[in-house]
Amino acid sequence: MIDERKLDDCSNKIKVLQATNNVRELQTQIRDKTTARDRFVFAADRLIRLTVEAGLTLLPYSEFKVVTPHGFTYEGLTHQPGNCGVSIMRSGEAMEKGLRECCKSMRIGKILVTTDEETGVANVCYLKFPADIATRKVLLLYPIIKSGDTCVKAIEKLLENEVPQESILLLNLFATVEGARCLSEQFPAMSILTTELSETDIPTNFGRRYFGTD
Amino acid sequence: MIDERKLDDCSNKIKVLQATNNVRELQTQIRDKTTARDRFVFAADRLIRLTVEAGLTLLPYSEFKVVTPHGFTYEGLTHQPGNCGVSIMRSGEAMEKGLRECCKSMRIGKILVTTDEETGVANVCYLKFPADIATRKVLLLYPIIKSGDTCVKAIEKLLENEVPQESILLLNLFATVEGARCLSEQFPAMSILTTELSETDIPTNFGRRYFGTD
Amino acid sequence: MIDERKLDDCSNKIKVLQATNNVRELQTQIRDKTTARDRFVFAADRLIRLTVEAGLTLLPYSEFKVVTPHGFTYEGLTHQPGNCGVSIMRSGEAMEKGLRECCKSMRIGKILVTTDEETGVANVCYLKFPADIATRKVLLLYPIIKSGDTCVKAIEKLLENEVPQESILLLNLFATVEGARCLSEQFPAMSILTTELSETDIPTNFGRRYFGTD
Amino acid sequence: MIDERKLDDCSNKIKVLQATNNVRELQTQIRDKTTARDRFVFAADRLIRLTVEAGLTLLPYSEFKVVTPHGFTYEGLTHQPGNCGVSIMRSGEAMEKGLRECCKSMRIGKILVTTDEETGVANVCYLKFPADIATRKVLLLYPIIKSGDTCVKAIEKLLENEVPQESILLLNLFATVEGARCLSEQFPAMSILTTELSETDIPTNFGRRYFGTD
Repeated sequence: MIDERKLDDCSNKIKVLQATNNVRELQTQIRDKTTARDRFVFAADRLIRLTVEAGLTLLPYSEFKVVTPHGFTYEGLTHQPGNCGVSIMRSGEAMEKGLRECCKSMRIGKILVTTDEETGVANVCYLKFPADIATRKVLLLYPIIKSGDTCVKAIEKLLENEVPQESILLLNLFATVEGARCLSEQFPAMSILTTELSETDIPTNFGRRYFGTD
Repeated sequence: MIDERKLDDCSNKIKVLQATNNVRELQTQIRDKTTARDRFVFAADRLIRLTVEAGLTLLPYSEFKVVTPHGFTYEGLTHQPGNCGVSIMRSGEAMEKGLRECCKSMRIGKILVTTDEETGVANVCYLKFPADIATRKVLLLYPIIKSGDTCVKAIEKLLENEVPQESILLLNLFATVEGARCLSEQFPAMSILTTELSETDIPTNFGRRYFGTD
Repeated sequence: MIDERKLDDCSNKIKVLQATNNVRELQTQIRDKTTARDRFVFAADRLIRLTVEAGLTLLPYSEFKVVTPHGFTYEGLTHQPGNCGVSIMRSGEAMEKGLRECCKSMRIGKILVTTDEETGVANVCYLKFPADIATRKVLLLYPIIKSGDTCVKAIEKLLENEVPQESILLLNLFATVEGARCLSEQFPAMSILTTELSETDIPTNFGRRYFGTD
Repeated sequence: MIDERKLDDCSNKIKVLQATNNVRELQTQIRDKTTARDRFVFAADRLIRLTVEAGLTLLPYSEFKVVTPHGFTYEGLTHQPGNCGVSIMRSGEAMEKGLRECCKSMRIGKILVTTDEETGVANVCYLKFPADIATRKVLLLYPIIKSGDTCVKAIEKLLENEVPQESILLLNLFATVEGARCLSEQFPAMSILTTELSETDIPTNFGRRYFGTD
């Protein structure tokens, strides 16, 4: 379900959702500037759910024996407790619905990074994390990585709150190679899962289209 | 996302959803006789959606160029029109919600196969198909394949309605090897996608638990 | 939220959802022959949810004291256990999703009534009820009442299974005055909740449009 | 569906959702400190949807004639275009899902008001509105009104962006009488719809419980 891609000069690997036909169709609908908004939202929600499900495979599981209705023992799996989500506002919030549809009761924190329109400097101006976030695996939600600056600020805040890099899985829909490399270099122990790495053109208006504020 | 498994004496291949950890956890929750009903339904809905998404990758797509908001051309994909769903009552109806969540407007037909409790003979006693079903690809929905008899009756009705075997994709959650082989032998050109093949113990009470009529 | 309407010659009352503007808009979209199918389904789901919520107000509740996070006692309500849904196939199944969205774990039985195309006689050819249905309140789901024959057959089966008339609440979207009167006369202790009573023109193609089998 | 309540010294009226049994049960579950989080979220989502549906009845509609599949003319209604949602972060975001389930494609803006923990002063530190918000009706989403300070800040920003008071409908779940009076006095032409007015004890932890950051 996941391909791994080694960027030349990175110490770790970027994981990319397998480009099956349904995934490619969803990416196409999201990129198409003529897609009507309700169809855009539907396609985005599907792609986000597929990304979340693939991300869940990367979290730790334990063996778990259960008894079936016919009385047989079945050697199954259960996820280890202690995961949470953190969405980077604003576009990361579009991924909360998909996360909730796969993990009904997962705690979801939030962080707001704004970019100064003149200087281009990213700045954290709000955050709300689960109290015990340092002990949790964190699914960090952000759909579009261009330069990566916004994610850098958010990740720095997680680290300040004593979340180890190893505990962070950044779930992303579209990333530039440059942005992914930048994050990968700065946070080599963090995992990144995306659905597509591009040289240049990524749907930077994703959040505005999803919420209709374009 | 999909593994292929060659049954010894079958001419065609059974496709099996890759047994990633999240898939295995969902199978475990569905098999566990102690799972509460709302959790059972939530796990079933997730596994069904994953099966539907994997099934959609097997349908035909066409190349589709779109223009992005930045004015670039993107070489994408779009599914070919002319698909429909058919659920085999009653347990197949549990899969309609997941189908709808991936294919919002897909037409969904229905077929009721009942089994005589004394003779064990399966019998079709109701069907409602889209008028032009013979020209459509059919996602046939049935979660549990034990002997395969129920599916055989349903597939025969599709063939009577001039749907070619090649146009049928049976989406299934749990199958016995024997049942899958039986279907595969009788309908060698039909595709089957399941999440798990077992020697014996499969959750035959799936539909009753999903709908709460156990 | 509910208006009551006394039909001239009926002993009991038909309850009608208050015709607020949003309800009337949904009825308009469902009646409009030009409404696209995904919009039709969306409007139907909203109207069904409103009908289910209004229906839930008619079931029995008990006083229920709870303690708030601030330590105060709050005199609240809780529904009495022992309700279930029964959908009359096929169009009644369109109401299952809305029922589930308001009552996550409610058990849902099913009954298939077919009409002989030559004689016009309605006939029950399949049913699956929760085992203890005689002790439950039954939300009977059927969106379109024209002559009422289909509902009569279904209700007779409930009575055969020892469900008292008083325990049945028929949830309906569109009914003819004649059909509603017929049901009301035959089953005077049963409750009926609809969103609109019409002299003649009701959207009899509702189920086929919802499922796309027209 | 809606009751009106005149506060003694207010020039306008506060609208309160009718306290039917199902509404009271949902309020009880949300207030109950022992409610598990997935049940809390389910109850909140239902109550939010009922509030949104009731709020939609207060927006402007136009007469709209449609032709039914049987060829009859039906005198219906359609809502006037030009509505949008604005959620006040963070707890107001919990109401976005319910808004989306009733108004699939509605544009949703956002405003972040933070409260200085030392001085208690509320401050707007982020906002994102649809470009043409001044010409739209605004469904302002905020579930808990205690002092009303947070809403005051948000409403002031709407007014600065030239949204007339008359165009604002504040959708709320729980309000103190004092908070509602404060808003009503300051913005007499704005509409407020809530599900419950209390003297003191309101579930101020609503947002934290909904998102699991308590």
